[in-house]
Amino acid sequence: MNILAISGSVRKDSFNTALLRTMQPLAPPEMQIEIADISGLPLYNQDSEGTFPAVAQALKDKVEAADGIIIATPEYNRSVPGVLKNAIDWASRPWGKNSFAGKPVLIMGVSVGKLGTAVAQSHLKQIMVYLDASVIGQPELYFGPAHELFDEAGNLTDVSTKELLTKALGVLASRTA
Amino acid sequence: MNILAISGSVRKDSFNTALLRTMQPLAPPEMQIEIADISGLPLYNQDSEGTFPAVAQALKDKVEAADGIIIATPEYNRSVPGVLKNAIDWASRPWGKNSFAGKPVLIMGVSVGKLGTAVAQSHLKQIMVYLDASVIGQPELYFGPAHELFDEAGNLTDVSTKELLTKALGVLASRTA
Amino acid sequence: MNILAISGSVRKDSFNTALLRTMQPLAPPEMQIEIADISGLPLYNQDSEGTFPAVAQALKDKVEAADGIIIATPEYNRSVPGVLKNAIDWASRPWGKNSFAGKPVLIMGVSVGKLGTAVAQSHLKQIMVYLDASVIGQPELYFGPAHELFDEAGNLTDVSTKELLTKALGVLASRTA
Amino acid sequence: MNILAISGSVRKDSFNTALLRTMQPLAPPEMQIEIADISGLPLYNQDSEGTFPAVAQALKDKVEAADGIIIATPEYNRSVPGVLKNAIDWASRPWGKNSFAGKPVLIMGVSVGKLGTAVAQSHLKQIMVYLDASVIGQPELYFGPAHELFDEAGNLTDVSTKELLTKALGVLASRTA
Repeated sequence: MNILAISGSVRKDSFNTALLRTMQPLAPPEMQIEIADISGLPLYNQDSEGTFPAVAQALKDKVEAADGIIIATPEYNRSVPGVLKNAIDWASRPWGKNSFAGKPVLIMGVSVGKLGTAVAQSHLKQIMVYLDASVIGQPELYFGPAHELFDEAGNLTDVSTKELLTKALGVLASRTA
Repeated sequence: MNILAISGSVRKDSFNTALLRTMQPLAPPEMQIEIADISGLPLYNQDSEGTFPAVAQALKDKVEAADGIIIATPEYNRSVPGVLKNAIDWASRPWGKNSFAGKPVLIMGVSVGKLGTAVAQSHLKQIMVYLDASVIGQPELYFGPAHELFDEAGNLTDVSTKELLTKALGVLASRTA
Repeated sequence: MNILAISGSVRKDSFNTALLRTMQPLAPPEMQIEIADISGLPLYNQDSEGTFPAVAQALKDKVEAADGIIIATPEYNRSVPGVLKNAIDWASRPWGKNSFAGKPVLIMGVSVGKLGTAVAQSHLKQIMVYLDASVIGQPELYFGPAHELFDEAGNLTDVSTKELLTKALGVLASRTA
Repeated sequence: MNILAISGSVRKDSFNTALLRTMQPLAPPEMQIEIADISGLPLYNQDSEGTFPAVAQALKDKVEAADGIIIATPEYNRSVPGVLKNAIDWASRPWGKNSFAGKPVLIMGVSVGKLGTAVAQSHLKQIMVYLDASVIGQPELYFGPAHELFDEAGNLTDVSTKELLTKALGVLASRTA
């Protein structure tokens, strides 16, 4: 069971990327979680579709090959970061070759405030339904404020968060099987 | 009256960019519409905020200086294109220095299908309300299918679309005054 | 295969109700489609949860018993009608006894304009993802303008619409099996 | 300055209704806040538009007469309660006689959880933009968990919440003037 995880933030000490790293050892034994790097993608431009840029094709291939997807998204201006949407736009193209179709998708996020990126996730879930993914609705995963969950070294230390992540991975595994 | 117009598409023959060019001569005499170029922006990264990249700062300065904003957005995967959201994310930062606050914003879009980017615009309007802009609700501007409105050279030729754009520019002018 | 269909409009000559009636004979032989009546529901009030009103309990029982759900929604003010949301609120309660969980849900709508209730459907899909339903993302079913699809007696006569409905029923059947 | 306040919950001990009652004495001297009662409205039915039911007409008249609107909304299934949407649907009709147009609208909500009805408010803000209201984007008003803000008698006791409400009323007053 090959899972591709995408962080919506490209900053070095991103809490969302840290969340994904925390999940790797929590996964059931049959599940491998690889974290994608979306920081090197160009801005999507339909004019480039004929010859997909190599980094965009590499991301698309990883989505295509995955049995399931995890997305940890920050909330920028009450929506999905442009950088994350840009990665999704590349992997959904060209028209008719959307690589998310049929795949189970687990969506989550952590914020410095208490909302836990809930509004951004509502947009992301709509987008993923359109892309014909199998969006996992429950449990919802809204984590925050980050400083109550992570230590100063950026490691997730909150026990109940880890338990919820483990439960969510179980749901993802059952959908992927 | 200095209006900044942003197209959510960076492809060369974008219908949305063409829509903005069509509006320039339709504007009332006191209004100047400048079309921003967002194709050269890097992906937003909070780590770069200390020293804003020059192209991001240039966009932010234009938003800051404008009396009003027009955004013509395509719809990618039933939401705003990543490339457009990325531009908005840059201009909204750093925290506490959101450059859209208080400005009237006119939102529109054209699509090859009949929906006219209505769902993407619903996300964009939410984002702009969060950014404390004065979002113009009516008239709504959902244009499509594009091939019924533009000629083969990519010029908007539909008369009722031009009339609606002229009406919308009047609303923008009254909000900006 | 027992499908419950809900129309978001309670007016007598509703196009959305007509759409559901059109689907009944298009269903595959193993599928029965019953159309629910939501017009007699009281406004949801948490104070009444202890003793669910009989009409609300009857709706909840039908949702509970169904193998799958179809919802045809009008768009009121770019969202789901209050009357439809009220029915969903009843069937989702009391807390912990949400009757939509795990069920495949097919969402559609018809409007007098060209948008085909796309924005309302985007809200409805979010709601149904939260309710842990298995939301069918494709095909999307945005029908309009109604007068091009229905005859004067209110019967759906458009052939390609019927074909798309038949295709969608096939997807629903495969998800329900 | 005549403000109409609408609570999206009709239960007796609603936190959202309590929030509105708390605001009445916090309002600036020139502002009167009347709380509407939406519990007696029938379900909206377009067939009844010719002769608006008296309770619906009474609500519509109050919206029409108000200089500004406050809405305190619970979140039901990550959207606006059906009961609230039903009230908005009535006041927006008949077509062409939407009573919210041009009015400043302040949106808020309180929940038992930490999200403070943020996702429901995102839907409500979209709806109000469509209705051509002047939606106040900042400050955002997401209150919760309720038990940390209200005492056992249901009175809002949290000082910083009262300060934020007072600030928001000031913004509403400046938009209404």
